[in-house]
Parts: sequence; structure tokens; C-alpha cells
Amino acid sequence: MAKKIKERIILGIDPGTNITGYGIIKIVENNPELVSLGLIDLRKIDDHYIRLKYVFDRTVGIIDEYCPDELAIEAPFYGKNVQSMLKLGRAQGAAIAAALHREVPIFEYAPKKIKMSITGVGSASKEQVASMLMKILKFEEKGMKLDATDGLAAALCHFYQSNIPVNNGKYNSWKEFVNKNPDKII
Amino acid sequence: MAKKIKERIILGIDPGTNITGYGIIKIVENNPELVSLGLIDLRKIDDHYIRLKYVFDRTVGIIDEYCPDELAIEAPFYGKNVQSMLKLGRAQGAAIAAALHREVPIFEYAPKKIKMSITGVGSASKEQVASMLMKILKFEEKGMKLDATDGLAAALCHFYQSNIPVNNGKYNSWKEFVNKNPDKII
Repeated sequence: MAKKIKERIILGIDPGTNITGYGIIKIVENNPELVSLGLIDLRKIDDHYIRLKYVFDRTVGIIDEYCPDELAIEAPFYGKNVQSMLKLGRAQGAAIAAALHREVPIFEYAPKKIKMSITGVGSASKEQVASMLMKILKFEEKGMKLDATDGLAAALCHFYQSNIPVNNGKYNSWKEFVNKNPDKII
Repeated sequence: MAKKIKERIILGIDPGTNITGYGIIKIVENNPELVSLGLIDLRKIDDHYIRLKYVFDRTVGIIDEYCPDELAIEAPFYGKNVQSMLKLGRAQGAAIAAALHREVPIFEYAPKKIKMSITGVGSASKEQVASMLMKILKFEEKGMKLDATDGLAAALCHFYQSNIPVNNGKYNSWKEFVNKNPDKII
């Protein structure tokens, strides 16, 4: 029987009021590998509470299926208006409650931080982030839903951030970022 | 053995980021009676996630203790800024997720609607609402925390609203309100 390599599993979620994307990576010998990615599509559900219940139940389900060690969340802290932020906060609250219910530690990252971490550019497009994820995690998926890659990006961002404890994920210069992340240069 | 009177139990919650107030009433032969009221005080908890977990766990605990048939929530839809609304949304989301987890139907009321329903005045102060609640539900509590009465007010408001199916809780005139609610006139 082969010796079991200690794995670390990270679930990344991008909670939205219409679509919640998620991605799971496992870290084997310090290398991130894709496990799964998918969508929790709420658009066909009219009722606001059934949407929240669905986010909660599906998040608990994903946690029970993949047993992640940590949860990374893409969490915008600013929005267009207070009503949309209240709705978004509820969706986030339902996903966070699911993780807390299963006692999975939570880490939040702002969208810009995630984009910067994956592509080196805080203003990168969703397509650029998706393209870089496919390159880093060595997978291809045509017509992939971009919201699913946002969840995956949060998971990978958390791996990068938690893997650089010395400077707490902050790079002092672009040169330093390039040197430390040669695989992120296209 | 006395014949069991069919009771309807309503839990009211006013979720906040610092304090969540709750109140439980039971309706016996169309009369509301106070069962309990209390606070979920989050001010001594520094960590944002432990606060949310506490709101979730305590709400589940209250539901399991009192087995409410319905949950009424005081839910402001407007706030000062997007950040505070996101935080409030998360607290609401955790409380709502707890109720959904236990499959308790949820009803939301805006603060003005609750004040109007209890006192007849949408701009009533917390003290006026508390005073009217003590009158209607025949209890006295000196130094009672006003946040707890907000949760109780949501529960009573839901009883009044759901008890007037004909005009959907809307009064056509002040006179009509007075006529239908003689006990609300001080």
C-alpha cells in the first residue's frame, strides 16, 4: 500500500445573489491540483429564501463531499447600492453559516486581491483569470462558466497567500512578484 | 386530561451586528401571550465569524427550544452605507439560514411597518413600542433591553398582519385602525 501523501484541500467560493461559483483544489507536495469546479445556479429559483436555503444546503453538501481544510471566499466590500449589498450579504451569510456549521475556517479576499494573486494584475478580466487558472492547474474547459472560475480563483489565491507567511502575501515590487512566481508569466 | 388548545408559536428576531433581540409569543384562542424574550449579545465577541456562528447556533437553539411555527424578522432595507449593510446582511443571512435549516417559514417586516402595527405610529420610539408591548402582552420588565423588545415587536406584528387576511394588514383610515385595535389606544 502506497504511503498516503498529506493533502490540503481548499474550497473556494464566490457567493452571488444569482450564481455562486465554487472550485476545489488539493495541495500535494506544495503543488495545487484541480479537484472540481462548478456552479450553484439560483436563477431558476424565484423565492429569495429558497435561494438562501439552496446556497446553505449546497455549501454544506460540497463541504461534506470534499472535506476541505479551509474555505476561501471572494468577498466584495463595496457595491453599487445598499439594497444590493444587503442581498449579497445575505448570500455570503448563508454560505459562511454553512462553513461555520461544519467548522471549516474561513478566509476572505477582495476581488482585486484575487486577480492580482492569480494574474499579477488587479484589474485583470474574468477571461484572463480563467485562462491563467487553466495554465496553472493544467486543465482545459471550453465554454466554462466564468463564475465557477471565480470560486476556483479564490481557492488558489488563498493557497498562494497562506503559502507565503514571511511577507504576508505582500510583494514589495513587481520584480519580486515575477521572481517568486515564474509560472504566472505568460 | 384537559383538551389541548391548539397553539401557534411565533418567534420574532431583530438581527443586528452587535445585538440580536428575540421574543416568543404564543397565540391561544386568538390572544397573543408572552412566552420569552432575550438578547443574543455579540459585543464581547471580537471575531466576525464567531459572531455569525453564534447568531446561527443560538437561533437554531431557540428554535429547538420553543418550536415556533413561524419566524418574523425585523429587516431594514435601507442603511447608512454599503459596508454596514453588507455586515447586517450577513447577520440576517446567518439567522435566516438557521430558520431555513430547521424549515421554519420566514416573514420579514420593515421597522416602520412593525412600529405602525404595534403603536399605530410608524415613527414611534423604541420606548413607546416597549411600553405598548408591555400593555398588550401584560408584562412588566424594568430596565428591559430595548433590542429584545424589537424582536418581540416583530413577532406581534406578524400575528397582527397574518390575522387580518381580508385587507392584508392595510388600514384604509386611522379611524379604521382605532376601531379594529381599541387596545392599542393609550
